[in-house]
Amino acid sequence: MRVLSERDFPYSSVKMLASARSAGSEVTFEGETYVVEELTEDSFDGEDIALFSAGGSISKKYGPIAVERGCFVVDNSSAFRMTEGVPLVIPEVNPEAMAHMKVGGKAGIIANPNCSTIIALMAVTPIHRAVGVERMVVSTYQAASGAGALAMKELEQQTREVVNDGECKTMEIFKWQYAFNLFSHNAPMMENGYNEEEMKMVKETRKIWNFNDVNITATCIRVPVMRAHAESINLTLKNPLDEVKAKELLSKAEGVSIIDDRANNRFPTPLDATDNDDVYVGRIRQDISQPGNKGLDLFVCGDQIKKGAALNAVQCAELLLK
Amino acid sequence: MRVLSERDFPYSSVKMLASARSAGSEVTFEGETYVVEELTEDSFDGEDIALFSAGGSISKKYGPIAVERGCFVVDNSSAFRMTEGVPLVIPEVNPEAMAHMKVGGKAGIIANPNCSTIIALMAVTPIHRAVGVERMVVSTYQAASGAGALAMKELEQQTREVVNDGECKTMEIFKWQYAFNLFSHNAPMMENGYNEEEMKMVKETRKIWNFNDVNITATCIRVPVMRAHAESINLTLKNPLDEVKAKELLSKAEGVSIIDDRANNRFPTPLDATDNDDVYVGRIRQDISQPGNKGLDLFVCGDQIKKGAALNAVQCAELLLK
Repeated sequence: MRVLSERDFPYSSVKMLASARSAGSEVTFEGETYVVEELTEDSFDGEDIALFSAGGSISKKYGPIAVERGCFVVDNSSAFRMTEGVPLVIPEVNPEAMAHMKVGGKAGIIANPNCSTIIALMAVTPIHRAVGVERMVVSTYQAASGAGALAMKELEQQTREVVNDGECKTMEIFKWQYAFNLFSHNAPMMENGYNEEEMKMVKETRKIWNFNDVNITATCIRVPVMRAHAESINLTLKNPLDEVKAKELLSKAEGVSIIDDRANNRFPTPLDATDNDDVYVGRIRQDISQPGNKGLDLFVCGDQIKKGAALNAVQCAELLLK
Repeated sequence: MRVLSERDFPYSSVKMLASARSAGSEVTFEGETYVVEELTEDSFDGEDIALFSAGGSISKKYGPIAVERGCFVVDNSSAFRMTEGVPLVIPEVNPEAMAHMKVGGKAGIIANPNCSTIIALMAVTPIHRAVGVERMVVSTYQAASGAGALAMKELEQQTREVVNDGECKTMEIFKWQYAFNLFSHNAPMMENGYNEEEMKMVKETRKIWNFNDVNITATCIRVPVMRAHAESINLTLKNPLDEVKAKELLSKAEGVSIIDDRANNRFPTPLDATDNDDVYVGRIRQDISQPGNKGLDLFVCGDQIKKGAALNAVQCAELLLK
């Protein structure tokens, strides 16, 4: 709702939908008070666009129903991301994937990519378009917010316990201490030893770029930071690119800001990105381990809640109006 | 001193040396009280081994003096690491580099590698010895302890301010907020856009392995963790190695413990390594971005103060007695 407001999203009417449990509560949006309604099959009649953010099972059930009733769905869950025919869209990266969709036309679902994928591709796509990316090695530094509001609260609570009482007592969301610690991402582990978060980066990148030949490996780690993700990204390039040109490309990229001040050792941090729209890029440098200017290193930070989720979804909805 | 005690290091006498400022203070070691003496050129007369940990400039000045007086130096600074003729030693990795050195023989300097290098190579060397490592891409998650005791205190103080008062006020060691944040390592930046910490990993690995053909790129990041470093490591192998064999190799490696429980999503964390001797390895998996079993991913944690510094130095001193 804050992003809709900030971007002055046009609307004639708004509905707030939730489960029966939350129905009846009140929500204020742009000076008006709305009573939250229970989500039913009829909720979408006469609506143009629905922004879904209630988890995969709700999306799976109600997404197709909304479309049947003529309502576009921008879905923030992973339910339809890899479904054929469902565009997976970062508006700055692949708006063409939803060029055939427009409010007034035949409704459909648009999937919002995973936060880590969005944040990485905002920085890497301009380079890919220019010289081709053959391989990516990504290590993430992911914030608590990706695990939900309760995880953020638990991190704060644990931290308070450690600094005030010298001992971490509250361990409800995670089975181990998060305060002053870090751990492999809590997404379910897959057969190949990658977790789902890591495999999302691999599969979603290929779909978004419409390019199956990119090889990706990722190691996703949760760090005791509140709401912006960081990523250390190493690229193997098809054609040479020097760091000066890489910086130039990134400086022209929409939605990307550069913080890359070597003299003052000042590069992006999660706090720079917190509550901001742009993805911040720094440590842009020639990878000395790959000769002939065929490698680049980057360090990227982006707000997980904004560009990693809500902002990207609202931008997709904006594309439906264009 | 704690490590010397824990390992029951043999000695007939001990001297505590420091600057004039600290001279006169008292230190307790194994039940005895020692008065700290001022470091002078004569301090080393009649001593067998000196453990140096007072920064590069003190090492540069007094290291050669100690050797001249017949005293071996195990130096924890970076002063002599890349000096030709000075062995750079991780006892589990390259003890042969100091095979010619023995208390009673001609004195010399032994350099203790950088903490991030030690922790990475404890895990990677068994793999390198078996199949050859051609390239390493490392992203670090480094603890406050690497920046010294005052940095640890500042992280704690800042964190207390944020959770109790909602605002970070103390910024003395670093120019930015460290609590609930992370940032590119504070080591001086070099011409090529890498910082010194990153270049240490590149150069020291080549020297320790006595193998200049390994290509390394590193991105070093400080995270709000107290005293154990973590590292995400991606390897390109000369000959194929599958993850089962990699795990087997690591399970036999001295000083390495494996935490790699995919079913329970349980892998090494900095708190596992804190105050422990071993380097912990997990997320051992075939890198899907490099076909033919020519790639591996690892996640490694090690105590920066122990194996990353004091323990390794004491182990080097032990080798001088063997």
